[in-house]
Amino acid sequence: MSDIPMTLHGLHAAYARGVSPEAVIRQVYARIAAVGDPAIFLAMPTEAEALEAARALGPFDPSKPLWGVPFAVKDNIDVAGFPTTAACPDYAYTPDGDAFVVARLKAAGGLFVGKTNLDQFATGLVGVRTPYGAPLNSIDPEIVPGGSSGGSGVAVGHGIVALALGTDTAGSGRVPAALNNIVGLKPTLGALSASGVVPACRSIETISIFALTVQDAYAAFQVCCAHDPADAFAKPCPAPALTAPPAAPVIGIPSADSIRFLGDTVQAASFAEAVDLLRGHGAEIREIDFAPLYAVAEMLYEGAWVAERYTVIEELLRRKPEAIHPVTRAIICKAEALSAADAFRGIYRLKELARAAEPALAGIDALCVPTIPTFYSTADLEADPVTPNSNFGTYTNFVNLLDMCGIAVPTPARSDGRPGSVTLLAEAGKDALVAALALDLEAAGNRALGATTWATPAPATLPPAAPTSQGLAVCG
Amino acid sequence: MSDIPMTLHGLHAAYARGVSPEAVIRQVYARIAAVGDPAIFLAMPTEAEALEAARALGPFDPSKPLWGVPFAVKDNIDVAGFPTTAACPDYAYTPDGDAFVVARLKAAGGLFVGKTNLDQFATGLVGVRTPYGAPLNSIDPEIVPGGSSGGSGVAVGHGIVALALGTDTAGSGRVPAALNNIVGLKPTLGALSASGVVPACRSIETISIFALTVQDAYAAFQVCCAHDPADAFAKPCPAPALTAPPAAPVIGIPSADSIRFLGDTVQAASFAEAVDLLRGHGAEIREIDFAPLYAVAEMLYEGAWVAERYTVIEELLRRKPEAIHPVTRAIICKAEALSAADAFRGIYRLKELARAAEPALAGIDALCVPTIPTFYSTADLEADPVTPNSNFGTYTNFVNLLDMCGIAVPTPARSDGRPGSVTLLAEAGKDALVAALALDLEAAGNRALGATTWATPAPATLPPAAPTSQGLAVCG
Repeated sequence: MSDIPMTLHGLHAAYARGVSPEAVIRQVYARIAAVGDPAIFLAMPTEAEALEAARALGPFDPSKPLWGVPFAVKDNIDVAGFPTTAACPDYAYTPDGDAFVVARLKAAGGLFVGKTNLDQFATGLVGVRTPYGAPLNSIDPEIVPGGSSGGSGVAVGHGIVALALGTDTAGSGRVPAALNNIVGLKPTLGALSASGVVPACRSIETISIFALTVQDAYAAFQVCCAHDPADAFAKPCPAPALTAPPAAPVIGIPSADSIRFLGDTVQAASFAEAVDLLRGHGAEIREIDFAPLYAVAEMLYEGAWVAERYTVIEELLRRKPEAIHPVTRAIICKAEALSAADAFRGIYRLKELARAAEPALAGIDALCVPTIPTFYSTADLEADPVTPNSNFGTYTNFVNLLDMCGIAVPTPARSDGRPGSVTLLAEAGKDALVAALALDLEAAGNRALGATTWATPAPATLPPAAPTSQGLAVCG
Repeated sequence: MSDIPMTLHGLHAAYARGVSPEAVIRQVYARIAAVGDPAIFLAMPTEAEALEAARALGPFDPSKPLWGVPFAVKDNIDVAGFPTTAACPDYAYTPDGDAFVVARLKAAGGLFVGKTNLDQFATGLVGVRTPYGAPLNSIDPEIVPGGSSGGSGVAVGHGIVALALGTDTAGSGRVPAALNNIVGLKPTLGALSASGVVPACRSIETISIFALTVQDAYAAFQVCCAHDPADAFAKPCPAPALTAPPAAPVIGIPSADSIRFLGDTVQAASFAEAVDLLRGHGAEIREIDFAPLYAVAEMLYEGAWVAERYTVIEELLRRKPEAIHPVTRAIICKAEALSAADAFRGIYRLKELARAAEPALAGIDALCVPTIPTFYSTADLEADPVTPNSNFGTYTNFVNLLDMCGIAVPTPARSDGRPGSVTLLAEAGKDALVAALALDLEAAGNRALGATTWATPAPATLPPAAPTSQGLAVCG
């Protein structure tokens, strides 16, 4: 299709030449029809309603950074007047109000166009654990869409919308990005309010943002990042304008001994190529032993955190257990065997593992990891609904447990044509740093955006960073 | 007795005029004999061994801030070669090494003189839940000694030692201070290593320090405060030299509607007098509604944290349940009814209560609270072993759950002669601020130190604080 590219750059250019937001909404609905996958969206405004919302925007308003930008919302996040299902019809309720973050997107001029499918209760990294049928991967229908934010990832991959909200505990905001050749921004915990979100693991999750480009994901992050005292887990977090990263950042990667591709040599080559790109942009690459990080990752389902998920479904489980997807139920009900003492033992163990990981992370500006170690097909998941899911979490599961922020960014396609993707990770509050580091990677090669034919953005030139505190002199 | 005052000032003056550390050790053992309470210490070096350690110090070393200073250690903290019982003979083990903090005290020249009695497994604020018999309160033997660090509080109250280590989860480092007319410094969580400590609630507890004066407690805090990576809950924390507090600090106190004295009008008058002292020193007093803080306090035993205590005794409980004090066992075994989901629900509830308390605490430099709302006798505890204990925690239980630091400081005696005490509290990392604020209070009136006849220190003159970051100019 020769549509308007679903990027802020593409939309702003179209609006500047007189295209109307109604025309953009018509394109959204036309692309939905052209894609023809009924499992992406679980609920939508009618086209007429969406057009009315577009008209209600009035004339272009440069003070609204997302004016006329279509966005989708994972269906575990409230949008006023639309059911929130969490992919479980018997759980559904229809909220009167928008989630805090959805309200921010709307206030910034964003146009809501649909609630997206997900692994039920955001439990899964595959996107197929849903009673509504799995959305098809936007790149290759044999591959799983990724999850749990599968519908959001696929909607952006197809260029239906410019932005889509996901959520991320284990990697639900990153794995679908890797599988659909798009960007997945996983903010610092607490940066984005969870008010109006059906929790999965409330203490270690966040809303996430999918977009076709890093700049777009980060622009949406800036819009969404405002402190919400009503969310007890929210924290004031910085969301400054992007500036150039350090000239020679120290980037940690998994050591040769500890890196895991599960036999996928094509993925290994793709990752090596991405690391070379970083090196070419001046990074100092430091190999670190990932054993302590894998040990942290294992706590997510082996430790007590599955009990957080249990608190969400407990009432439904008593009332109508068959309403819950059997795989999901089997995973979450492990919590029934765990005592409060087990929960605290898990918290102690995590603290000890985090401490053990500190030496490896000392002196590193950011980590670069493969977003996923390899690919899995829907057939693989039918044969074994658990192991591929666990494997997808190899490089994602430890991140929220260690309170890191990250961004999954496409890299040049693999030698077999499948999308390349790495994730840049840094300590909490460094969301701008990882986004800035990701810009060079997304501009490399001759990749197209998502599953579209739209060209990747030109390499960005960022303004230099403000002087650091190392240059401060005390004079007060 | 006309002994050398057990303060750093008193000891330094004695050493300066040629007194030997052996003479000080002889005084320690003479006072122990004079006090004649066999329930204060659970284990001690022989006097000959202690004298040998004193001789081994060599000549006075000004680089060792605690050179020749006798100290005691609560018996849930390891001292090499002495059994650690946690007041439970069947739990006891004899460690090969010192706890991290004990090693710091010894390295600074401190002289270890004994392990002190406690409420078993540091569970209690009364000091009588011990199979070794309760130590007698140093001021009035009818009053409970306070706990759980009862032996440490009494040892300092009697002037046997200059310093004693306690631990503090619910208030075990503060309540004995109030009951024995001494100082109880409860550091920021993580400031003092827990390596070599039998935990009570590992995620929300700390070693604490008892002393006769604020300056002494803070000096010991500075010695002990060094980051220990081996303790997964340790955090690097500041322990700067004391400087003058703000000229007009904003001090929050419980509002008239929310303050609780349980009918003790003498305690109410004593607290009002302490607040007047603060006001007289320039503080702006702001009444705040304590309801949110009381709600936090209730989480400590009503929430899931009791399961932390359960993890400590679980093995012993299976092996020999009768080895555990019946009151202690009844409290801790409540954890058996709590699931991991309950634990996380407790964590959520705490986060929400902490958020609800934020508005009341905004703009406050520190809180000032009565350390205890009223007094209880050993007879009261025999009649009801639980309620008085709970009441003692009125103003202490919320503190570690909210990650605040604090110092319990004596104020002029109440009109009935019982000790006055308030606790100053501030956010984590402000240990120096609360200590500085406490100095004026301890110097007020004509109080003696602890149960001794030694005079209170003269009002301190602290150097002005360094310029704050508000005066920084960026020039790098």
